[in-house]
Amino acid sequence: MLASDNSSGVHPKILQALVDCNDGDALPYGDDNYTKEALKRFKEVFGERSETYFVQSGTAANVLGLSSILQPFEAVICAETAHINTDECGALEKFTGSKILQIPSRNGKITSIEVKKTLTVKGNEHRTQPKVISISQLTELGTVYTVSEIKELANFAHENDLLLHVDGARISNAAVALGVNFKEMLSDTGVDLLSFGGTKNGMMYGEAIVSFNPCSTKKLKYIRKQGMQLLSKMRYISAQFLAFLKDDLWQMNARQANNMAKLLAEQVKNMPEVEITEEVAGNMIFAKIPREWHQPLQEKSYFYVLDEETNLVRWVTSYDTTEAEILNFTSAIKKLANH
Amino acid sequence: MLASDNSSGVHPKILQALVDCNDGDALPYGDDNYTKEALKRFKEVFGERSETYFVQSGTAANVLGLSSILQPFEAVICAETAHINTDECGALEKFTGSKILQIPSRNGKITSIEVKKTLTVKGNEHRTQPKVISISQLTELGTVYTVSEIKELANFAHENDLLLHVDGARISNAAVALGVNFKEMLSDTGVDLLSFGGTKNGMMYGEAIVSFNPCSTKKLKYIRKQGMQLLSKMRYISAQFLAFLKDDLWQMNARQANNMAKLLAEQVKNMPEVEITEEVAGNMIFAKIPREWHQPLQEKSYFYVLDEETNLVRWVTSYDTTEAEILNFTSAIKKLANH
Amino acid sequence: MLASDNSSGVHPKILQALVDCNDGDALPYGDDNYTKEALKRFKEVFGERSETYFVQSGTAANVLGLSSILQPFEAVICAETAHINTDECGALEKFTGSKILQIPSRNGKITSIEVKKTLTVKGNEHRTQPKVISISQLTELGTVYTVSEIKELANFAHENDLLLHVDGARISNAAVALGVNFKEMLSDTGVDLLSFGGTKNGMMYGEAIVSFNPCSTKKLKYIRKQGMQLLSKMRYISAQFLAFLKDDLWQMNARQANNMAKLLAEQVKNMPEVEITEEVAGNMIFAKIPREWHQPLQEKSYFYVLDEETNLVRWVTSYDTTEAEILNFTSAIKKLANH
Amino acid sequence: MLASDNSSGVHPKILQALVDCNDGDALPYGDDNYTKEALKRFKEVFGERSETYFVQSGTAANVLGLSSILQPFEAVICAETAHINTDECGALEKFTGSKILQIPSRNGKITSIEVKKTLTVKGNEHRTQPKVISISQLTELGTVYTVSEIKELANFAHENDLLLHVDGARISNAAVALGVNFKEMLSDTGVDLLSFGGTKNGMMYGEAIVSFNPCSTKKLKYIRKQGMQLLSKMRYISAQFLAFLKDDLWQMNARQANNMAKLLAEQVKNMPEVEITEEVAGNMIFAKIPREWHQPLQEKSYFYVLDEETNLVRWVTSYDTTEAEILNFTSAIKKLANH
Repeated sequence: MLASDNSSGVHPKILQALVDCNDGDALPYGDDNYTKEALKRFKEVFGERSETYFVQSGTAANVLGLSSILQPFEAVICAETAHINTDECGALEKFTGSKILQIPSRNGKITSIEVKKTLTVKGNEHRTQPKVISISQLTELGTVYTVSEIKELANFAHENDLLLHVDGARISNAAVALGVNFKEMLSDTGVDLLSFGGTKNGMMYGEAIVSFNPCSTKKLKYIRKQGMQLLSKMRYISAQFLAFLKDDLWQMNARQANNMAKLLAEQVKNMPEVEITEEVAGNMIFAKIPREWHQPLQEKSYFYVLDEETNLVRWVTSYDTTEAEILNFTSAIKKLANH
Repeated sequence: MLASDNSSGVHPKILQALVDCNDGDALPYGDDNYTKEALKRFKEVFGERSETYFVQSGTAANVLGLSSILQPFEAVICAETAHINTDECGALEKFTGSKILQIPSRNGKITSIEVKKTLTVKGNEHRTQPKVISISQLTELGTVYTVSEIKELANFAHENDLLLHVDGARISNAAVALGVNFKEMLSDTGVDLLSFGGTKNGMMYGEAIVSFNPCSTKKLKYIRKQGMQLLSKMRYISAQFLAFLKDDLWQMNARQANNMAKLLAEQVKNMPEVEITEEVAGNMIFAKIPREWHQPLQEKSYFYVLDEETNLVRWVTSYDTTEAEILNFTSAIKKLANH
Repeated sequence: MLASDNSSGVHPKILQALVDCNDGDALPYGDDNYTKEALKRFKEVFGERSETYFVQSGTAANVLGLSSILQPFEAVICAETAHINTDECGALEKFTGSKILQIPSRNGKITSIEVKKTLTVKGNEHRTQPKVISISQLTELGTVYTVSEIKELANFAHENDLLLHVDGARISNAAVALGVNFKEMLSDTGVDLLSFGGTKNGMMYGEAIVSFNPCSTKKLKYIRKQGMQLLSKMRYISAQFLAFLKDDLWQMNARQANNMAKLLAEQVKNMPEVEITEEVAGNMIFAKIPREWHQPLQEKSYFYVLDEETNLVRWVTSYDTTEAEILNFTSAIKKLANH
Repeated sequence: MLASDNSSGVHPKILQALVDCNDGDALPYGDDNYTKEALKRFKEVFGERSETYFVQSGTAANVLGLSSILQPFEAVICAETAHINTDECGALEKFTGSKILQIPSRNGKITSIEVKKTLTVKGNEHRTQPKVISISQLTELGTVYTVSEIKELANFAHENDLLLHVDGARISNAAVALGVNFKEMLSDTGVDLLSFGGTKNGMMYGEAIVSFNPCSTKKLKYIRKQGMQLLSKMRYISAQFLAFLKDDLWQMNARQANNMAKLLAEQVKNMPEVEITEEVAGNMIFAKIPREWHQPLQEKSYFYVLDEETNLVRWVTSYDTTEAEILNFTSAIKKLANH
């Protein structure tokens, strides 16, 4: 289906890793060898200075990570479309006590020009103090920040006593879209904090908070436990991440997803009835299609209608989306168009 | 090892259920058939009035569940040894804003007599208002509340405008110890809220908040998401619980764990060097043993030393603990004793 | 000065009331006769069904009041200009854990049409659930909701399972502007919760949470104490409120303030250099004036420049603003205009 | 009455200061000359390194102050009798998310020996991390820490990466009891944070957070506003504190209160029916008296019965307690004893 990349099952190699690590006992809460090995791998991927904390959900990665660099009277600046702002049921406000300062975005992306406007309140105790810029990579609209755009935002942040957070629920798709590795996109650009996504790219569960900010490192250990995210049988997250990073499985998975989105977009882009509203950088397509197509197409491959007024729909491909599925779907579109 | 029941791997039948449910796509966040089926099973087990919410960790089950029946100015009354009081890094205080009123316990168990003493502050706005009694079943000391003790606490609670919560991280071991099913122990005694444990009895991850209190039901849906515990690929928790409940696997697992604890206790109970400090009702043994035994025994089978002063240790058996492992361990004890 | 109505001193009658009530001992925390009498007066003013809780600051009245009718996963809908959204340093998010859903306003006022757009997320656990509409009366831009507008918003709220809160920091000025009493404007229109302001209309300190919602009544007693707002020497707030309400002192004070704003506006409204940007309903004037006037006029009577780009300034009159002060100020304006 | 020192009215000199500062306008939120002057006086009293923030209530001083030096996963260690633990309706837990680790006290006082026992959990992420020792001076039982006891606790704290907080609701009474000034007792002993009380010693309202810890200084500005304690008409707190500190009024007030407590204790100490249970260091007497005396004595001068079982009562004297009132009260006691 095209509903979401988290409607996919677990990649066979990751499932096998779960089966393989099941043998025998292992100390709980991360004191096991799988976790030690996985954390070592994260240091290889993100640099020696990085510190990584596994959690179960993307919302948790965002909220607990941000909680380590935010005081309650400080604010996160993000696009009004940001997942932390719209889709986490106020988890950030609840857990951190902080405010979200939403700013206008173009195609899901924000710029330092818009961020700057929020900074006039600095030092004014009546206002929450801007502290962190948070961007989603891929954005919620499927677009991607270039490496130099990230670098520019990081520089701007640091010049203004701010930090830069990346919500990387679809970070693998972004890396493939940009043709770079994680280090080039994140460690080398000056990002301070990363929510690294695994679930949407073939894992069963498991996300990682990657901190490039030594100050927050010691805290995160406690924040994770107090935040109800210290999993007892940690080896099962760690084993998944080991498989995820081995032989660049993450990349192959994301490449397949991205390619399938490209294929879909390619097939329909010249049809007058279909308006693709955002650049298709990764594995998400936003399109306006005739309302009467919704149901017959959803029956082919289920997807979400985002706006009943404008007929905006979202198609998300995944690591296990096949060419056949896409072509089957687009041929249905073409049939509908011929009416 | 005897460190904890969460150092065990996943029971083969549950692992198989994870493999089996991996086929194809499924809507995320619980809109899948495995979850529907699992929730139906929970209603069969706990009664039609119950409502169940799956979460990942026991701490989350406790905190989010309690959050649905507590105002920030209200308090939870529990044994000073309770997991929510000592081992969750203040997660309850952080998430609910509530206070924990710890009361003295005998062998990990509290009585209405001690609870009653906290109620004199009712109506006094300077004091947090007692609202929930929370007990652990098994207790943190491995003892068990009888069905009539639970009933008595539930009655006392309701007569005093309180609710009764059960932290059931080892609820299967308790049910086996008492020779009853979950309904008899929990639904029929008047418990209002249950943290139902799966992980310590053979699951990979997955606990359940079971509410018998209709008021909190609607809330819990939102509390779980805001509490960062709505797992996207929910089917993998649900499939585990289906296997856990099928053919009373939970019971077989708990019985094996309990029997192994009994065997261990049996083997050492008459040795003058070994003082078993609490009744062994389930799968935990608390004992004082000579300090010089710690290391050689930990090498046989690792366990935690709880108090270096008193030489108190904890041995926890699990569903996969074997007779051979226990006898190997107790023969090492006997050898040490013969020196 | 024209900076704010809270730059004024205390009205002599209220100061006298403080002196008068100082004689002898009085039980603390509201168990005194002044408080009993004052609460009785509030019931006379707002109706028998109302319950009133005195607090020290307007921010506290807003936050603690709203906290009594909001769950952390529920949201307050208000104008993007609302004081709770912009000027309370995130106090609402911190204390309640709730999110603020800001909507566009016209002249500081919101309509049910805009509120309605936020309601599509009802029942969706990924979104914070709209629960309370909050309006400011006077608005932050000095405009006023008519009685029928309030009634319409209250009806809309109740039809949609929402509640209506009024931030009444300048509620006296609004009542005078509309020519109604508090009951007609608030109790009879269906408002659920009111932050009733005293400080900006001649008191030393003291605001009141007035609840028309019986459910929140019992809670507020505890919320106020846990919210650090239960004043020990309560009689001194109560005595002030008694003087405030006696012989309609509140009304005389507000009338003077409003009249002085009207006079000021009257004097400058036809000057081409002065653009009054909002209707002057109460005691606040928003105007754009030449930048070079700022400093010389601030020296006459200090006021805040709200936007250095657009040269927007705010002039606030108070109960003790005199005709002489206004005319002195406007004659300075006229002199500047003659250059 | 002998109920509490906050049942007294305002000292005439402080009331006069309120009247005197009422003339004319003053910028709100502390940008006025009274506040500037008062803050200067606090630096004179507590040293240049100190930073002071005025708030309205003692609970707020405790909670907001502690909030500036505590992370949510960190704990405050205090006597089980501490005001923050028992009498603030869980305000600390609510606002900071932190846990209170209560330890046994002797006569309301704690020692580093008991504190030390809580430190074994340091570094263990399952446990809240001890961070602050909080003592009350006077204690809740009317006893007093000597200067060297405070110094010893401060040293112990700093050697163990802890901070020392003093809840000084009755700090003036303690200073008089010890015959020292505030600097000797607090700045010079190594205290990190102080809640400085005014209300119980003759003020109308007003407490101060005094920080000796530069790190928390910048934060407290925002914490106070977000904590709903930034009073708009700040001059009225500042003017009170100026009068409070002028010509050592604080000292005269506290001395009178202490002397009256001493007188009362002196008069009854040899009576067999009266058992004074704690050393009378300041202005509080805890005593067990025959139950049948409660009512007739309360009619003479109202006081609280703390424990109906043990007949424990508390008598609190105040700056305005007179010798006549005490002798009148003790003569009533003597009359009752003669029956």
